[in-house]
Amino acid sequence: MTQADDHHSVPEDAKRPDIMADIYAEDGSIRSDFLAMVGAAIGDRDVLFLRQNVARLHESELGDLLESILPEQRHAMVRLLGSDFDMTALTEVDEAIRLDIVEQMPNDQIAAGIGEMDSDDAVYILEDMDREDREDILAQMPFTERVRLLRALDYPESSAGRRMQTEFVAVPPFWTVGQTIDYMREEEELPESFSQIFVVDPTFKLVGALDLDRLLRSKRQVKIETIMHETNHPIAAEMDQEEAAQLFEQYDLLSAAVVDDNGRLVGVLTIDDVVDVMQEEAEEDLLRLGGVGDEELSDSIAVTSRSRVPWLAVNLITAFMAASVIGLFDATIEQIVALAILMPIVAGMGGNAGSQTMTVSVRALATKNLDIHNASRIIRREAGVGLLNGALFGCAIGVIAGLWFNDVNLGGIIATAMLINMFAAALAGIIIPLLLDKFGADPAVSSAVFVTAVTDIVGFFSFLGLATWWFGISG
Amino acid sequence: MTQADDHHSVPEDAKRPDIMADIYAEDGSIRSDFLAMVGAAIGDRDVLFLRQNVARLHESELGDLLESILPEQRHAMVRLLGSDFDMTALTEVDEAIRLDIVEQMPNDQIAAGIGEMDSDDAVYILEDMDREDREDILAQMPFTERVRLLRALDYPESSAGRRMQTEFVAVPPFWTVGQTIDYMREEEELPESFSQIFVVDPTFKLVGALDLDRLLRSKRQVKIETIMHETNHPIAAEMDQEEAAQLFEQYDLLSAAVVDDNGRLVGVLTIDDVVDVMQEEAEEDLLRLGGVGDEELSDSIAVTSRSRVPWLAVNLITAFMAASVIGLFDATIEQIVALAILMPIVAGMGGNAGSQTMTVSVRALATKNLDIHNASRIIRREAGVGLLNGALFGCAIGVIAGLWFNDVNLGGIIATAMLINMFAAALAGIIIPLLLDKFGADPAVSSAVFVTAVTDIVGFFSFLGLATWWFGISG
Repeated sequence: MTQADDHHSVPEDAKRPDIMADIYAEDGSIRSDFLAMVGAAIGDRDVLFLRQNVARLHESELGDLLESILPEQRHAMVRLLGSDFDMTALTEVDEAIRLDIVEQMPNDQIAAGIGEMDSDDAVYILEDMDREDREDILAQMPFTERVRLLRALDYPESSAGRRMQTEFVAVPPFWTVGQTIDYMREEEELPESFSQIFVVDPTFKLVGALDLDRLLRSKRQVKIETIMHETNHPIAAEMDQEEAAQLFEQYDLLSAAVVDDNGRLVGVLTIDDVVDVMQEEAEEDLLRLGGVGDEELSDSIAVTSRSRVPWLAVNLITAFMAASVIGLFDATIEQIVALAILMPIVAGMGGNAGSQTMTVSVRALATKNLDIHNASRIIRREAGVGLLNGALFGCAIGVIAGLWFNDVNLGGIIATAMLINMFAAALAGIIIPLLLDKFGADPAVSSAVFVTAVTDIVGFFSFLGLATWWFGISG
Repeated sequence: MTQADDHHSVPEDAKRPDIMADIYAEDGSIRSDFLAMVGAAIGDRDVLFLRQNVARLHESELGDLLESILPEQRHAMVRLLGSDFDMTALTEVDEAIRLDIVEQMPNDQIAAGIGEMDSDDAVYILEDMDREDREDILAQMPFTERVRLLRALDYPESSAGRRMQTEFVAVPPFWTVGQTIDYMREEEELPESFSQIFVVDPTFKLVGALDLDRLLRSKRQVKIETIMHETNHPIAAEMDQEEAAQLFEQYDLLSAAVVDDNGRLVGVLTIDDVVDVMQEEAEEDLLRLGGVGDEELSDSIAVTSRSRVPWLAVNLITAFMAASVIGLFDATIEQIVALAILMPIVAGMGGNAGSQTMTVSVRALATKNLDIHNASRIIRREAGVGLLNGALFGCAIGVIAGLWFNDVNLGGIIATAMLINMFAAALAGIIIPLLLDKFGADPAVSSAVFVTAVTDIVGFFSFLGLATWWFGISG
C-alpha cells in the first residue's frame, strides 16, 4: 500500500470491510436498515453476520445498538456472539439494560469477558451486581487480577478508587530515559494505553510523574528523576469522584496518580473516566432542578412514578399552603371575581422570575463561581433585576388588566403586586440556594420547591391583600 | 536530594516557597487571608510580593483570583505584574471580566502575552476583541504566528477550527521510530505538550496518527507507517465544536486531527478544550431550561434584566391565555369561591409533573438517548406515569379538599381534574420537546413555556369546566 493510496481510500472502509461504514443516521440514531439487518441476523441465528458486523463495532456503537433493540434481541445477540461479545459495551448502556444483560449471561462468560477489560471498566460492571454473583465471578479469575479488582471494589462507591485503572507503568527515579524506553519495548504486560508514567520508590510510594512527550524529548542517558515533575495533584483513593473531576478540570490534567493513605501508588485516573463523571454530574444537576431523581430512560412505569413522587408530594404541601392564603381572602374574591381570574398571573410570573434567578444561582454554586466573595454583589444584582423587570412587567400587566376589566384601580393593584412579587422572587431565587448550600443541603434538589412556595404565597397575599385593603372589604 | 527526602516533603511546598501552598479555603473559594494580602500588596504597589505569590499561580488559580477581587484591583494588578502576568488566566474568567481587563491593557503587552500562549488560547482571547484592536495586535506579532492565528480566526465561531491548537508534531510515514525520537530530541519548536503525533504525506495530507505510548513500545528500526493507526475520526475544521465534543466522548479520544477541505492537517483538538466545550454546553442546556439566556455572573443589572425579558414576555402571553380560560367560568367562581381557592393546586401540580417529564425528555434529546427507535416506548411510559401519579395525587388532593370544604362533590371534581391534568402534563412534557426537536428548534429553550401553558389551561379548564357541569351552573 503506497502512501497516496492510503490517503485517498476512505479510512473507515479500509478498516471495516463490512456492510456499512457508518451505522448512524443524520440525526444521531442508528440507521434503520442496519437495525433491520441485525434483527434479521438474530432471527436467523446468523452468527457469521453478527461476528463480521456487530463484533467489530466500537464499544460505544455496540452500546447504542444494544439500547436500540428489543430485550429479547439483546439476550439472543449476546448468546450468539459468545466470546466475541465485547463486554466493555456494557459500560456504555443504561444501568437497567446492563443489569438485564448481565443477569442473563452465565458467570463463566462474564468472568472471561471481564478478564479482558481494563480494571476500571470491570469494576463498573461488577459494582452493580449481586454480592453472590460477583464473588462467583471473581473466584473464576486469576489471582492477581482478582486482588486488583477486590482492592478497587473495597473503596467507597463513587470514589476515585472505584473509577481508577489499576494498570499503570511505574519506574524508579534512578533509571535513565534509555532504560525506561527499553523496559517499555520489552515488557509484555503494559496497560493498553497510557500518556504518563509514574515514578515510585522501592515501597511503591509516589515520587513523581513524567509525561510521555517529555520522555521522548530527552536523551537516553538522562535520569528520570531530573525530568520528572512532582505530582502536585495526587488523588486520594477515597476522594469523591466529583472532587477528583474538579481537579482534572481546574488543572487540565489528562491522567493523575491515585494514592492510598500511605502515599502508595494504587492506580491511575484518566480523563475519559472523568469526562463520564462530569457528564453524569451535569445530568444529575439538571434532572434534580427539574424535580426528577436518579432515573433512567429504561426504567419502568412503576420505578419512574415512584422516583417522581417525593417532589410532587412536597409540592402538594406548598400548594395547599398557597391555597390557604387565597382562602383568607374568600370574601374579597366573592365580591370581585376578576381577582380570581388575575391572581394566577401574579403568582406565575413571579414563579418564572424566581426560577430564572434560582437556575443561575444553583449553576453558579455547582461550578463554585458563587462564593462568599461575590455573594453580596450577586444578591444586589438579582434584587436590582427583580425590581427592574418587576416594574416593567408590572406596568405591562397593570395596563392590560386595567383595560380588560375597565378598572384603573385593579390595574394599579396588580402592577404593585407584580413588583412586590418579582422582587421577592429574585431574593428567594438567590438566598434560598445560598442558605441550602450553607447548611449542607444540595441546592439543586430542594431550591425549586421553596422558591415556588415563596412566589405563590407572596403573589397571592400581596395581590389579594392589596385589593382587600384598597377596596375596603372585610372578611 | 535523595529519593526518600523527596517523598516525605510535601510536594506543594517544595515547588512553591511562598506564603501559602493552597490558596483555596474548604468551600472552594479563595482564602480570605490570601485575598487580604494580595489587596494590600496591590495598594502598596508591592511588585515583589505579586511576582512571588501571584505570578507563580496556575492559570486557573489566577483566573479565580481575578474573579474574586474588585475591578480596580484587577487593573492595578495586571499593570503591576506587567510581563509577569500570565494571560492564559484570561481564558479562565467570565467573558465580561476578560473584556474589561483586555480593554485596559496596552496592545503591545497583549501581543507579547499572546505570543507566549498556545494558539487555541490566543484565539480564545482574540476572537472576542474589537476588529481594530485585534488587527493592531496581530500586526505586532511574528509572521508565522500571525498567519496561524489568522487561519484559525478564519473558521466560523464555535467551530473545531477555532478551538484547535495549530502547534503539533507531524512526521512522514517512511520515518523509523528511531528517526522520530531523534527528531523530537533535537527539535526546539515542539508544542508544549502532546500525546499523539500525526503522519502526513508531502502535501501535508493526513495519513494516520500514532499515540506516544505505541511509539515508545516499538523498536528503533520499526517504520512509522507499520505502527500508526488510520484516523477514523478526523475532524473537519468547519465542524461545530459541540459535534466534535460528541465524537471525543463517544470514542474516548484524547486528541484528534483537524483537517481542512482537502484533508490537509491544520491543527489538533485536545480533550482539555473539549471538556470546556462540554461544560459550556451542559451549562447552556441547564440555563435555557430555566428560562435564562447566555448570561454570566459578572453581567450588570441592565444586561441581565434584558436577557431575561424574552422568556418572561412569552410567559406573559400564556399567563393571560390561562387567565382568560378562568374568565370563561366567572359565574361559577362567583357562586363557589372554593373553586378559586383550589384551582391553583390543579394547575401547579400539573405544571410540576409536566416539568419533570420535560426535563427528562430535553436531557435525553440532548444526549441523543431519545430517538425514533424508542420515542413511542417513552411516550407510553410517560403516559403511564402521568396516569399513575395523577390517580395517586388526585385521590390525595380529593380527600383533603373534600374534608376542607366538607363537600364530597368538590373532592371528586378536583380528583378527576387532577388525573386529567397530570395525564395531559405527561404527554405535553414529552411530545412538545420531540416536536420542537423535529422542527429544528432547541427544545431546551422553548419547551418550558409551552408545557406550562398546556398544564395551566388544561388544569383550569378541566377543574372549572367539570364543576360548572356537575353543579349545573350556567354563565
